[in-house]
Amino acid sequence: MADEHFHTDHLVIIGSGLLGTSVAMGLKKRGFTGRLTALCRSTASADTARQTGAYDHATDDPAAALKDASLVVIAVPLGGFRAVFTQIAEHAPRDLVVTDVGSTKASVIDDAETCLDDLSRVIGAHPMAGSEKSGPQAGDADLFVGKPCILTLSDSDDPDAVALVRSLWQTLGMSMLTMSPAEHDEKFAVVSHLPHLAAVMLVQVAEQLGGLELASTGYRDTTRLASSNPPMRTDILLANREAVKTSLDALIQQATQMKAMLDQGDEKAILQALSQARDSRERWMDQARKDE
Amino acid sequence: MADEHFHTDHLVIIGSGLLGTSVAMGLKKRGFTGRLTALCRSTASADTARQTGAYDHATDDPAAALKDASLVVIAVPLGGFRAVFTQIAEHAPRDLVVTDVGSTKASVIDDAETCLDDLSRVIGAHPMAGSEKSGPQAGDADLFVGKPCILTLSDSDDPDAVALVRSLWQTLGMSMLTMSPAEHDEKFAVVSHLPHLAAVMLVQVAEQLGGLELASTGYRDTTRLASSNPPMRTDILLANREAVKTSLDALIQQATQMKAMLDQGDEKAILQALSQARDSRERWMDQARKDE
Repeated sequence: MADEHFHTDHLVIIGSGLLGTSVAMGLKKRGFTGRLTALCRSTASADTARQTGAYDHATDDPAAALKDASLVVIAVPLGGFRAVFTQIAEHAPRDLVVTDVGSTKASVIDDAETCLDDLSRVIGAHPMAGSEKSGPQAGDADLFVGKPCILTLSDSDDPDAVALVRSLWQTLGMSMLTMSPAEHDEKFAVVSHLPHLAAVMLVQVAEQLGGLELASTGYRDTTRLASSNPPMRTDILLANREAVKTSLDALIQQATQMKAMLDQGDEKAILQALSQARDSRERWMDQARKDE
Repeated sequence: MADEHFHTDHLVIIGSGLLGTSVAMGLKKRGFTGRLTALCRSTASADTARQTGAYDHATDDPAAALKDASLVVIAVPLGGFRAVFTQIAEHAPRDLVVTDVGSTKASVIDDAETCLDDLSRVIGAHPMAGSEKSGPQAGDADLFVGKPCILTLSDSDDPDAVALVRSLWQTLGMSMLTMSPAEHDEKFAVVSHLPHLAAVMLVQVAEQLGGLELASTGYRDTTRLASSNPPMRTDILLANREAVKTSLDALIQQATQMKAMLDQGDEKAILQALSQARDSRERWMDQARKDE
């Protein structure tokens, strides 16, 4: 079935962590017949990738991996994208199609622009799938099934490249959304990066002012994202810094307003703010349940 | 067994919601032999309280309920405490012992001070138990078992009153902590009221800037507290406004620092902040698991 939807002669996955290995396993499970290569940053990580059995080949030699690649999936941390695009510029065929799994998108385009002459076959993707676990051992052929995948498109994209990338993620079971890189990044700053920072800042305030011995389930859930991988999150925040700063400004503004309402003892305004927030979240929860 | 630990001739529970009714059910289950009266704000709510079977009597007449009361548990919303203390001043015997379930404590003392001459038998308590549900129908004899209960004490407290109140909550299965009302309120501002406001403000920012259609489990968990009961939460925030404002200031300060680090692209400082927050939360989670 997969072959009807998705084929490419030589798919190279750069970065063999959880996501890269899950792409490889998912394609194998769905009958992919092209070649599948893992391009790793070291011989040790190539050995590990090889041991998963998810790839036909695993190597740390970019020239060997890329020389006849037809499609590349970049699955390295955001901080490593520029080095990957440099390897692609040096070693890959000119008609190579590129997609990625990065959770910010404008920075990926920026990195590509500094390294490549032609961006028409670089089709950014953000598959919204993950796990508490990481590394190739956590690879899961069904990690992407039923999850949304955002393609960030522009007018200059090559239609065949878009179709190929779209069919890759669809074959893995994802439902597709499309938007511009800027819209993607602004929205994720609000619903993902700011909640993560709020969790971090709540922990910082508790360390500063004390009280952790009384913390309970409310603190636990509100700060859950503070346990996320710090280097990966640092990468994301820096890659999306302008939109994150805008959302931090909005948070500071709300906190300042809340302080003023408390100062004035304005019960009616506080009750209204809390009621509106509760209603908004309940609407969202209802919608999220329907979408499941 | 309970009788060895806890006895009082006539226990009046003011406010027959989830917590008040759970106190009554918990005591009955543990063999309490004194009289148990529900004092309600209306005949309708007295009828509902009566139907739970948790009380010997239920009434909306404060004079009848309080005239020979030996111990009162105040289990009304924080905004109703002053009216309750007025009833107590008017109708109750002078040697009445009072405790409560309020989730802020300095405001309870303030309210008591404006109504009562002698506060030595008013022993504030904050039983840290609750449920998604509310109302007498949700009453649960084991709601308090294994949970912490904070007694807020002062030097002028009557030792017999402290002993009686302590044995009430211990009989219900709670583990006791003691601290001053001010310390209680400052710490809860940090680990409970600020996380609630952070959840509310994240929802407000999402409404303002958009992006909810991309929100996922991170947003869901970080904003869970925004679904809390708005009138009850408004009461708590106003009752604890000074400490809440201090914690909001600390949050604004952290957000401003984070913005500056992003502005400067200071990868090392961001990574350090995220790592420290992650480590703090993991230490707290380890401790919370041990305490279970």
